[in-house]
Amino acid sequence: MVKKRVVLALGGNALQKNGEATAEAQKRVATAVGEVIAELADKYEIIIAHGNGPQVGNILIHEESASTKNAPAMPLETAVAMSQGQIGYWLSQAISNSFMRQGKRRKVVTIVSQVVVDKNDPAFKNPTKPIGQFYGPAEAAKLARQNHWVVKEDAGRGWRRVVASPKPIDIVEKNSIKELVADGIIVIAAGGGGIPVYRTKVLKKLKGIDAVIDKDYAAEKLAELINADIFASVTAVPNVYINYGLSNQEPIHRITAKELQNLIKYGYFKPGSMLPKVEATIKFAKKGGTGIITDIPHLKSALSSQAGTIITS
Amino acid sequence: MVKKRVVLALGGNALQKNGEATAEAQKRVATAVGEVIAELADKYEIIIAHGNGPQVGNILIHEESASTKNAPAMPLETAVAMSQGQIGYWLSQAISNSFMRQGKRRKVVTIVSQVVVDKNDPAFKNPTKPIGQFYGPAEAAKLARQNHWVVKEDAGRGWRRVVASPKPIDIVEKNSIKELVADGIIVIAAGGGGIPVYRTKVLKKLKGIDAVIDKDYAAEKLAELINADIFASVTAVPNVYINYGLSNQEPIHRITAKELQNLIKYGYFKPGSMLPKVEATIKFAKKGGTGIITDIPHLKSALSSQAGTIITS
Repeated sequence: MVKKRVVLALGGNALQKNGEATAEAQKRVATAVGEVIAELADKYEIIIAHGNGPQVGNILIHEESASTKNAPAMPLETAVAMSQGQIGYWLSQAISNSFMRQGKRRKVVTIVSQVVVDKNDPAFKNPTKPIGQFYGPAEAAKLARQNHWVVKEDAGRGWRRVVASPKPIDIVEKNSIKELVADGIIVIAAGGGGIPVYRTKVLKKLKGIDAVIDKDYAAEKLAELINADIFASVTAVPNVYINYGLSNQEPIHRITAKELQNLIKYGYFKPGSMLPKVEATIKFAKKGGTGIITDIPHLKSALSSQAGTIITS
Repeated sequence: MVKKRVVLALGGNALQKNGEATAEAQKRVATAVGEVIAELADKYEIIIAHGNGPQVGNILIHEESASTKNAPAMPLETAVAMSQGQIGYWLSQAISNSFMRQGKRRKVVTIVSQVVVDKNDPAFKNPTKPIGQFYGPAEAAKLARQNHWVVKEDAGRGWRRVVASPKPIDIVEKNSIKELVADGIIVIAAGGGGIPVYRTKVLKKLKGIDAVIDKDYAAEKLAELINADIFASVTAVPNVYINYGLSNQEPIHRITAKELQNLIKYGYFKPGSMLPKVEATIKFAKKGGTGIITDIPHLKSALSSQAGTIITS
């Protein structure tokens, strides 16, 4: 049987249950995720692209609060790489252990992944993504001058750095990922939307840039590049809903990319929440694949079109 | 032509020239290393296992100085994973860029690597490896109680946590590494000696443990596991020396494992400095491979036995 190739986009928030951010607490959540992934691996080739919002936020808080000449703070792009090591380690260990428990001899591996963006992406003109800690107005202004940051007041809670969220256009390690998947190995890649890099104009060299790539867009790009059959955005709810949270909310079961696109126009989905997931699955469905939006408990059924929101072309 | 397979152990200190620890400064050094690696890749299959001493030290300093309930410090084992993401990213980007500059279409990839140790390794009874920041005696005692740390006074400079340095016995990701190398991809693996893990007694599950695995021992283990032809420990000096630093110092050019072992007995090599490199290359030579100890400028010549210290069985 030829296995279907599935790219899963897993939320970084999903690893911090009730906001518990210790390594131990996040490993416990990873263990539960691992059990599901290990079961799915019987029937599917699995590639996992996880988020890193709360994790990279904490790394930056630590780096910036305790930055000294001898131990200087790492920039955001390197912090993303650090979060890939961290979360990739937790997830790959959890999945390995589930394979062991289920008596399966399968392998899991985490690939440190650079995701290419366009330096002329309009997002760089208008940074919107808040990251790291809150500052008072004076300190924020000083840091902005010192580090060439853009800072913004964040909903009355203080000032924060904001960075661009450009679109992913390529994944540097795509061939290695493909080789490993073809060899039957579960691959964790493009963590946190990937380490943002761009290619220099003349020499085409890779260079890191401080930005945050949306995890769903990066995962979808990965799904395209490695010819996945299914792209599943795994979130906190079993379905996409119309009128979500209202008394008349309605789950969507099956929908075409075109129909879903119309619902976006009507303003049904919130930016930064359901909207990127909906947009990413539409993009994937339009390329001929199957898009899924669901939660962990419904993932297995959704993969055989028995649950979740299924988006087709 | 069948390429010889070479595992390089690169010192983590080597990335911090004159102690410059910013991401920018370390990337500059990585760029120089990348040029050498990209050139060697024409003739050899290259696998890189780098150190992480100063980098993981700084991560721990940041994590521990700014640990809060919402952003708790990560433990050492997870910090090693973070340093693998960080250094692996810098090195893989630098090597990719050198390939690009040299007009070669080769790939580089970093594998987040767990290295298995024995929980009954005698090293855990006598932790010796100082890590992280210095504390006053009262704070050190308090942290030791709180976190079950062992702390020791460090040469009059203050108190520090000490951890065990157990021997590597396996590398969880060895098969993925092998597949990638066989596909012609440059692999960066077992960074910082690897994320230390052990297998639980009954269920054989992987579990992280706070420890520091020597980078040369881990790299040598990797070389064995992936059937490398050559294991090269790349350090700051072109050769191993007898009476190093004295007026009568003598470089060693070619030597057998047995002869080198005798020199250890005479006390010629310092623990924590040349000794682990000498021991690791002896171990590899005894298994039938070629061991090399040299510096970056002499690496190319050393690989064809024209420079460096060459250790054979």
